[in-house]
Amino acid sequence: MTEPFTTDVKIRFADVDDARVVYYPQFLDYCHVAFEDWMEAGFDKPYADIVQREKVGFPAVNLNVDYAAPARYGDTLRVRITCTHLGNKSATVRYEMFRVRDDVLCADARVTVACVDMDTFEGQPIPPHFRAFFSAAQS
Amino acid sequence: MTEPFTTDVKIRFADVDDARVVYYPQFLDYCHVAFEDWMEAGFDKPYADIVQREKVGFPAVNLNVDYAAPARYGDTLRVRITCTHLGNKSATVRYEMFRVRDDVLCADARVTVACVDMDTFEGQPIPPHFRAFFSAAQS
Amino acid sequence: MTEPFTTDVKIRFADVDDARVVYYPQFLDYCHVAFEDWMEAGFDKPYADIVQREKVGFPAVNLNVDYAAPARYGDTLRVRITCTHLGNKSATVRYEMFRVRDDVLCADARVTVACVDMDTFEGQPIPPHFRAFFSAAQS
Amino acid sequence: MTEPFTTDVKIRFADVDDARVVYYPQFLDYCHVAFEDWMEAGFDKPYADIVQREKVGFPAVNLNVDYAAPARYGDTLRVRITCTHLGNKSATVRYEMFRVRDDVLCADARVTVACVDMDTFEGQPIPPHFRAFFSAAQS
Repeated sequence: MTEPFTTDVKIRFADVDDARVVYYPQFLDYCHVAFEDWMEAGFDKPYADIVQREKVGFPAVNLNVDYAAPARYGDTLRVRITCTHLGNKSATVRYEMFRVRDDVLCADARVTVACVDMDTFEGQPIPPHFRAFFSAAQS
Repeated sequence: MTEPFTTDVKIRFADVDDARVVYYPQFLDYCHVAFEDWMEAGFDKPYADIVQREKVGFPAVNLNVDYAAPARYGDTLRVRITCTHLGNKSATVRYEMFRVRDDVLCADARVTVACVDMDTFEGQPIPPHFRAFFSAAQS
Repeated sequence: MTEPFTTDVKIRFADVDDARVVYYPQFLDYCHVAFEDWMEAGFDKPYADIVQREKVGFPAVNLNVDYAAPARYGDTLRVRITCTHLGNKSATVRYEMFRVRDDVLCADARVTVACVDMDTFEGQPIPPHFRAFFSAAQS
Repeated sequence: MTEPFTTDVKIRFADVDDARVVYYPQFLDYCHVAFEDWMEAGFDKPYADIVQREKVGFPAVNLNVDYAAPARYGDTLRVRITCTHLGNKSATVRYEMFRVRDDVLCADARVTVACVDMDTFEGQPIPPHFRAFFSAAQS
């Protein structure tokens, strides 16, 4: 495997909750942003174009997230993406989110996505170019 | 005019920003929630049904908001709705948001909405039953 | 066990993503809202008061979510809450979210929370009255 | 005046509402992101640091927004920032948001902010270095 893809996500003023730490569902939004950055880097076009032109989507079917340390406003998270499982119609993508200032792991999310036809929402085998893309990220 | 419509909106754990007060764009989300509650009370069906079946929508074309006092997690806002302008193709809806615990006005938002055909997004005259509804809320 | 606690959460206009289904991290926000409703019903005071006066918090340390069916704008979700594990310093709360219109399970989330002192964010044993509360929800 | 500051904001998958256009309160979040980018570029440190170390904040006291055209998932907005009013204790910052693909103005927001002491939330005169910063952006 080549070096895993990483992308930085800045924690914004309103991403925190009343305890002044990132609201736990917000980390999943960071995963989605990182997923789009990753796809865009891999296919050299915006993920929106992929979804809209190729009519392929990758909705989440399972999430498993460990929260290890809080992140706060002013922090930046480095998201490291790997593929931990690649099936015929689904894949599991792992997002390890580290605070840039001290390299501490804040959250470790494994998101299993199904490949679907965006017109029908029916499952379908992962097309070859996406399969190659996920495969290259396997450890 | 009859008594203005009011609806209560609870401030949630993640509605605040890092200063631990409601993030200012969040008040506009409360306006939208209050607008839906108001429509639902007036037409006795969910606003989603109105939008989807009647193909009529009311997107915002102008906002004017005064922020007067902060609201915090644990507060409930009482939203008082009146119609301050009713044109042929647009209306201005005013949302006064008071903290229930001390009746202090936190935000006063005037949202001008256009009436559009949801299939084309083109402006259209406000249909008579909506016109009557907005008119009844004029002060 | 008595009947599990349930609470209804209305899907709002902006809770969906560009595929016009509820954005997957949004379901976790519904869990939090349901958790607060549940606590409020059990202790007869707002969860904000519990957190702020008792200085006890329950941050998520692990999430495991299965997404089974999409939910859309206009849907209401009935959230059924049970406690599936009760440890000394942590508990796992399960949220089954059903579409009210057809009783289909959309998402099944198990959220493990730690009990912490809100001043220090250090873990602590679950205080007896919370222990009794979680215990009553065990199946 | 030098060329106005601009920053690009990418519209994300969940920023839209059920009409598949950017939810109108979301544009105000883009303003806040752009404001932080602007401050960071001007003072060469993160806005979070400014707020936290200098104990100065700029909460919104008035918003006036014109919505001119919809923005969609896949669009990027170019936000152009100018200062349209500079008082002793407040300033009005204007955000013109253009779709990058066709240079159409989508939203034009004027946000009046007060300068406050973040410990007390009391208004205070804008400190000289911020005054110079806002002044340089006046047209």
